[in-house]
Amino acid sequence: MSKRSVYFFGGEQTDGDASQKELLGGKGANLAEMARLGLPVPPGFTIATTVCSRFHEALHEADGAVPDDVLSEVDQNLALLERSMGLRLGDAQAPLFVSVRSGAAVSMPGMMDTVLNLGLTDKTLEGLAASSKSRRFALDAYRRLINMFGDVVMGLGHGRFEEALSAVKNKTGAREDTDLDEAGMEQVVARYKAIYESELGHPFPQDPRQQLTKAIEAVFRSWDTPRARRYREIEGITGLRGTAVNVQAMVFGNLGETSGTGVCFTRDPSTGENVFYGEYLVNAQGEDVVAGIRTPEHISRLEQDMPLVYKELIGIKDKLERHYRDMQDLEFTVQEGHLFMLQTRAGKRTAAAAVRTAMEMLAEGLIDEKEALQRVEPNQLDQLLHPTFDPAAARHVLATGLPASPGAVSGQIVFTADEAEEWAGRGVEVVLVRRETSPEDIGGMHAAKGILTTLGGMTSHAAVVARGMGKCCVAGCAAAQIDAKAKTLSFSRNELNEGDWISLDGSTGEVMLDRVPTRAPQLGEEFEQLMALADKYRRLGVRTNADNPKDAKNAREFGAEGIGLCRTEHMFFEEDRIAHVREMILAETEDTRRAALDKLLPSQREDFSGIFEAMDGLPVTIRLLDPPLHEFLPHETERRKELAESLGVSLEHVERRCRELEEFNPMLGHRGCRLAVTYPEIIEMQGRAIAEAACDAAEKGIAVRPEVMVPLVGLKAELDYCEQRLRAIMDTTFQSRGQKISYLVGTMIEVPRAALRAGDIAKTAEFFSFGTNDLTQMTFGFSRDDAGGFLVEYQEKHVLPEDPFQVLDRDGVGRLVELACQEGRAARPDLKLGICGEHGGEPKSVAFCHDAGLDYVSCSPFRVPIARLAAARAAIR
Amino acid sequence: MSKRSVYFFGGEQTDGDASQKELLGGKGANLAEMARLGLPVPPGFTIATTVCSRFHEALHEADGAVPDDVLSEVDQNLALLERSMGLRLGDAQAPLFVSVRSGAAVSMPGMMDTVLNLGLTDKTLEGLAASSKSRRFALDAYRRLINMFGDVVMGLGHGRFEEALSAVKNKTGAREDTDLDEAGMEQVVARYKAIYESELGHPFPQDPRQQLTKAIEAVFRSWDTPRARRYREIEGITGLRGTAVNVQAMVFGNLGETSGTGVCFTRDPSTGENVFYGEYLVNAQGEDVVAGIRTPEHISRLEQDMPLVYKELIGIKDKLERHYRDMQDLEFTVQEGHLFMLQTRAGKRTAAAAVRTAMEMLAEGLIDEKEALQRVEPNQLDQLLHPTFDPAAARHVLATGLPASPGAVSGQIVFTADEAEEWAGRGVEVVLVRRETSPEDIGGMHAAKGILTTLGGMTSHAAVVARGMGKCCVAGCAAAQIDAKAKTLSFSRNELNEGDWISLDGSTGEVMLDRVPTRAPQLGEEFEQLMALADKYRRLGVRTNADNPKDAKNAREFGAEGIGLCRTEHMFFEEDRIAHVREMILAETEDTRRAALDKLLPSQREDFSGIFEAMDGLPVTIRLLDPPLHEFLPHETERRKELAESLGVSLEHVERRCRELEEFNPMLGHRGCRLAVTYPEIIEMQGRAIAEAACDAAEKGIAVRPEVMVPLVGLKAELDYCEQRLRAIMDTTFQSRGQKISYLVGTMIEVPRAALRAGDIAKTAEFFSFGTNDLTQMTFGFSRDDAGGFLVEYQEKHVLPEDPFQVLDRDGVGRLVELACQEGRAARPDLKLGICGEHGGEPKSVAFCHDAGLDYVSCSPFRVPIARLAAARAAIR
Repeated sequence: MSKRSVYFFGGEQTDGDASQKELLGGKGANLAEMARLGLPVPPGFTIATTVCSRFHEALHEADGAVPDDVLSEVDQNLALLERSMGLRLGDAQAPLFVSVRSGAAVSMPGMMDTVLNLGLTDKTLEGLAASSKSRRFALDAYRRLINMFGDVVMGLGHGRFEEALSAVKNKTGAREDTDLDEAGMEQVVARYKAIYESELGHPFPQDPRQQLTKAIEAVFRSWDTPRARRYREIEGITGLRGTAVNVQAMVFGNLGETSGTGVCFTRDPSTGENVFYGEYLVNAQGEDVVAGIRTPEHISRLEQDMPLVYKELIGIKDKLERHYRDMQDLEFTVQEGHLFMLQTRAGKRTAAAAVRTAMEMLAEGLIDEKEALQRVEPNQLDQLLHPTFDPAAARHVLATGLPASPGAVSGQIVFTADEAEEWAGRGVEVVLVRRETSPEDIGGMHAAKGILTTLGGMTSHAAVVARGMGKCCVAGCAAAQIDAKAKTLSFSRNELNEGDWISLDGSTGEVMLDRVPTRAPQLGEEFEQLMALADKYRRLGVRTNADNPKDAKNAREFGAEGIGLCRTEHMFFEEDRIAHVREMILAETEDTRRAALDKLLPSQREDFSGIFEAMDGLPVTIRLLDPPLHEFLPHETERRKELAESLGVSLEHVERRCRELEEFNPMLGHRGCRLAVTYPEIIEMQGRAIAEAACDAAEKGIAVRPEVMVPLVGLKAELDYCEQRLRAIMDTTFQSRGQKISYLVGTMIEVPRAALRAGDIAKTAEFFSFGTNDLTQMTFGFSRDDAGGFLVEYQEKHVLPEDPFQVLDRDGVGRLVELACQEGRAARPDLKLGICGEHGGEPKSVAFCHDAGLDYVSCSPFRVPIARLAAARAAIR
Repeated sequence: MSKRSVYFFGGEQTDGDASQKELLGGKGANLAEMARLGLPVPPGFTIATTVCSRFHEALHEADGAVPDDVLSEVDQNLALLERSMGLRLGDAQAPLFVSVRSGAAVSMPGMMDTVLNLGLTDKTLEGLAASSKSRRFALDAYRRLINMFGDVVMGLGHGRFEEALSAVKNKTGAREDTDLDEAGMEQVVARYKAIYESELGHPFPQDPRQQLTKAIEAVFRSWDTPRARRYREIEGITGLRGTAVNVQAMVFGNLGETSGTGVCFTRDPSTGENVFYGEYLVNAQGEDVVAGIRTPEHISRLEQDMPLVYKELIGIKDKLERHYRDMQDLEFTVQEGHLFMLQTRAGKRTAAAAVRTAMEMLAEGLIDEKEALQRVEPNQLDQLLHPTFDPAAARHVLATGLPASPGAVSGQIVFTADEAEEWAGRGVEVVLVRRETSPEDIGGMHAAKGILTTLGGMTSHAAVVARGMGKCCVAGCAAAQIDAKAKTLSFSRNELNEGDWISLDGSTGEVMLDRVPTRAPQLGEEFEQLMALADKYRRLGVRTNADNPKDAKNAREFGAEGIGLCRTEHMFFEEDRIAHVREMILAETEDTRRAALDKLLPSQREDFSGIFEAMDGLPVTIRLLDPPLHEFLPHETERRKELAESLGVSLEHVERRCRELEEFNPMLGHRGCRLAVTYPEIIEMQGRAIAEAACDAAEKGIAVRPEVMVPLVGLKAELDYCEQRLRAIMDTTFQSRGQKISYLVGTMIEVPRAALRAGDIAKTAEFFSFGTNDLTQMTFGFSRDDAGGFLVEYQEKHVLPEDPFQVLDRDGVGRLVELACQEGRAARPDLKLGICGEHGGEPKSVAFCHDAGLDYVSCSPFRVPIARLAAARAAIR
């Protein structure tokens, strides 16, 4: 059985265990594990993920079916299940019913399909009626199967079934589904069967074995739908073989008041607090909870209703958390007072909860330090670093819903996912407002700043997906009414239209009118503990990219150990300087250019002084002027006229110079050190400003460690040209001020040639900082400004797995980085190596930097904690 | 004496020899060699080139002087020279006079300075008068020294000296210099001394030793003048230490009718014919010949005037050519019937002469095949491949000058080098018209299509430099008169103004009115022999870049062994297709796009049919559509309106689409295979057109070998995407036509990432063709469209030795090429490797391609012979 495809669990035998997630999917592996632990799991079997890939290969070739060898294994396992349950699929007296559920190695909530109550036919209906002692119940189960099978397996959709249900309810005067009596249900089943047959041209299948095969195929098919692919794309899920299929004996949570179903977490998934947290619906099937159709009650209700079951559940949740040593997300069903476990998995949690549970479990001795670090995804921390609403600000609360996913956002309301995507594409900040969300809404949820639903609970689709995305969500806000056609959102006293602003507080559930001002995030004690732990394990230094003292201070509070990139051009753009910059650019001779630069010197010096003060004792890497000069010139004729007047030159002169400086490909143009070779006086001014600011700071007792960085070097001679001029002016300045300040001169490695000649360049450069934004542009030949369109297509067509501007391309760009590290260090063993592209704050890229042997990464202030954690995880991997 | 700086030659001892060009310069090494051969060389000594670099280093530090140790060696050698000649520098009775001349390892005609007659003072004047038996002669020599020393050493220029000379001539009624009698000369000397003193504030130096030191310094200084640097830049002369200084006993060619001076070549430097070729001026100093002031006579005049001297010269030239086994350029002076050799060096020659001498010397057994190949610089062949005037065309010959450098050009006349540069910079084709050229004119000569001078001979500055540049030149056209102020050029019956068109035939010396049509070059028998020899030795294949049947045929005649790059976009731009192309671009759906492409299919198919026919039996590499789509759209509103009307869409639609397609950095934009990923239907159409054309050709009995090339690949998945679609459509076409045509699918390697992932990509690609234009752009981060300005500066500031778009950058771009070759071949041992960037026709780059193990280079049709020769030279190097 080395090529076994089907694995049994529960009852007499369990083939798999929790370690086999890749093969059995998360759900299947954990069902097996729970069975092994002796927990009450309805028996069943799992068809492995490997079958899914075989299924899809076959689909390309022929009409696609489950392979015969798999079907015969299914038969054997089905026989075992029947024996184990003492029931038989399709048997009139003792019929077996099963659920058919998907389950990939990585959870994709709601993305793939499920069929419940499978095995019901006209014949077995009566068996179920007899065993459940309720013919109404059996009919209800049957109509659910017809609906689900018709929708999921045959692609009919819900619409006509729901119309029929409403019609019968109207006719019989029933308000809720539960008001329908047996006769009503009988009518519903009849109508459903008629719809099925009229739509598909054949009656609902009365052979349960055929139902099963079709359902298995449908689950496999659901792996590769556009919405499932899009979900994996957004979540960055790659490398999976497909979904497994779990076929499991049905238990019914809707057999009356001693039955029910629920979802719970061993700790609070929103805050991480160590309390039992969950939701419960009496007399309901599991899908009712997840789909958010009925708003469930707090788990404590179960304690009141069925104290013994509750106690058993508490025991199980404790056992599972200890066993898995992680917070678990459980699904259970109670059938006539008997508890059955249907799922356990690591619970999705907010960043705050992830940090708190990791730190508390570490304190409890449940996990060790390395495990604690693995428990928090670095990117998740981004949530914690989000701002919160300013408590001092006025707020007009319209209503309060469930605090489904934290965050404090404002946006203009839209009512469909498509609009959310479209508006966001135009740069509008939107809040997506829906009665409930469904998997089709994924794109719009991703595009929105926040999500508001009027139905559904904390475990509804909207809530689960939003938490996974780290997106602010208020769910189940029952006080709000949506009119999708009129595009209005009504509260008791207010009616809002599409485009109106609201604010959502995902931590309190408050929905507020208009935009509410925010303030910087408050980080808790556990966060500090986690960061201290990360610092203990990481080898990589973490610096920040900051161009002004405020950002520098902020980053230092987040733990930055220096500035890895201080861009000087941002200073040039400031109101009071841009005039001098333009004067300099329009100068015709070196003398007039120097005169304009002299006017810039004092402000540059001040810029650097402020940054040196903020970073007292820490290194500060200052990049010399980088952008092409045309970026500093005005584009509109009116502005050019003003400029000409202010400088006392003709408009023609200004326009000629603008024309001269225009470039076809500015990315590859006259910028970086190329400017310095043409106008060495610019970097001489900058060198002088750095040296004077360093002296000023040193005289105040501040420890200054300047690192001067020459951008866009591709040739050693370019760096030499700049380095000689810089050292000359800086050394002279230090000498004349009587200061001994040591400093480094190094370069960005951002042009492919620089990486290829790193051995040469390191003879002059005392440090390298990889500018992976530009290096990615030139290595791929992708202009970041232009590639947006086709990069999305590349990902859709599987030409590129990830956007290389987000995640560093190890194979291509990474190879250049590694080569430059090796050859640079060979030429200068103490060469300092860092990265200052935006990849420096992206966890996978940070892991690469660790592997490549860099000394530090540098990223934007808010990503410093992410980089610290990512660096630690890379070190212990 | 390991660090010896001065080397003696002639007379009693000769220290150096011809192998020491780097140390002694060409002139010094060859003077030593001639002395060793026992030829009549006036003795002297050479100060080594190493002193020049020491001199310039010292200049940077202090006020710069010749180092003391060198001066003491000069003293010792001067003593030896005095002993050898039996004369003493500054001696009143038996004075020694010397010339001081530059001489670098590579000849730089006229670029550096010379001082003759050095040693003349008021005191030694009388000694010279006595020994020459002519006080007038001695005075003439003295005034020449004062002029030359004042100009060259002290920087006074010629102007005031010439004015003074004219004044005396006017006063005394002399028409020519030679008409001046002793008294006249006396006056000239007096005036010259007065000018010298008034300009410089001190009298002309009466200490010959001081004259010598100053002259040596001046020669060293002349190495590093802007004009000398510019010359080296244009000629690509790098890696030299500086110039040597040759101090040599004077011989006088102006001692009357038994004296004279000349320059001659052992074979005709213009045609290569094995005849003694030279020019001779009786009673003149050598500078008179070179400067083109007097137009010299044919060397046969010497035979009439001094048959014995002539016979001796014939013996010497035969001996030297046999000794050096190469055509020699000789300078000689006859002093009162005695022949002295002043220089021998390899003669500069036209391409035709280079080819003919190489082939004839090979036939004569003077050199072997490999040496013959080394005798022709591949780039020189460009001259031979230049068109000539159509003999059938009407021509209005204005006058005939000397055929100084071959070529057939037309251009608008300008009268200064600056204007030539400026006009040419604006894209105007110009002919530079000068009385005579001087080293200051180098830039303008380079910029001009051709050069016309009214004075000077075949060895004048204009002639020598033009031949070196491969530039068409007609020299000494005495029938033409220049009025530089009025900017007119007058012939007997015509007066032309600045900007008027003329045509020059550099092979006949004809100057013609207006533009005369040209025709393709006629290549001689020796050319074919040389090419056959090159083919015998080269390993590299040579293909051509050709986009149409005419170019393809032309290249095949030049020896192309296939097409390495057929760009399909050029076809898209043609009148009858651009409309369909635009329709395709403006299509909103795949269907309408396909409909537009269907209209393009027939013309694409025809294009390929013609090319397949022309290249019957040879491989044809077709590159799929490469440029971004916006390149095909019109820019002006008027044209856009027309387009909108013709397509029946709104102007807004056209403008919106134009806006959508605009790019910030089109070089790095949506082009190449990126277009194919977005619109696979484009390459499907192209694949179909190729396959159908191949079938059409095959059915006519033509052997077709298509190689389909996917551009701009950076990821294997991009190539896979295209390859699958291409093969699907091509295989289907071949099948349906019942043809079995084997073809290759490969890729350009032009994105750095492609080189870094060559191992991957070669799993799909059957060939690589290095697109080194784009690869250079991306590896350096230089946009070719924008870098023009700063690349010139980079070369001037020695940041880059050569323009990497002309000569492939071995260190950076070359490293990527080598890496891709190695890893590509490791993955696919029979991977075909070629290059199709413009470097494929540049000799140094061809040598690199040989070293890197490429299979072939591909270049423009006219460069095919150059590539063949370069490939052979690389193979035998």
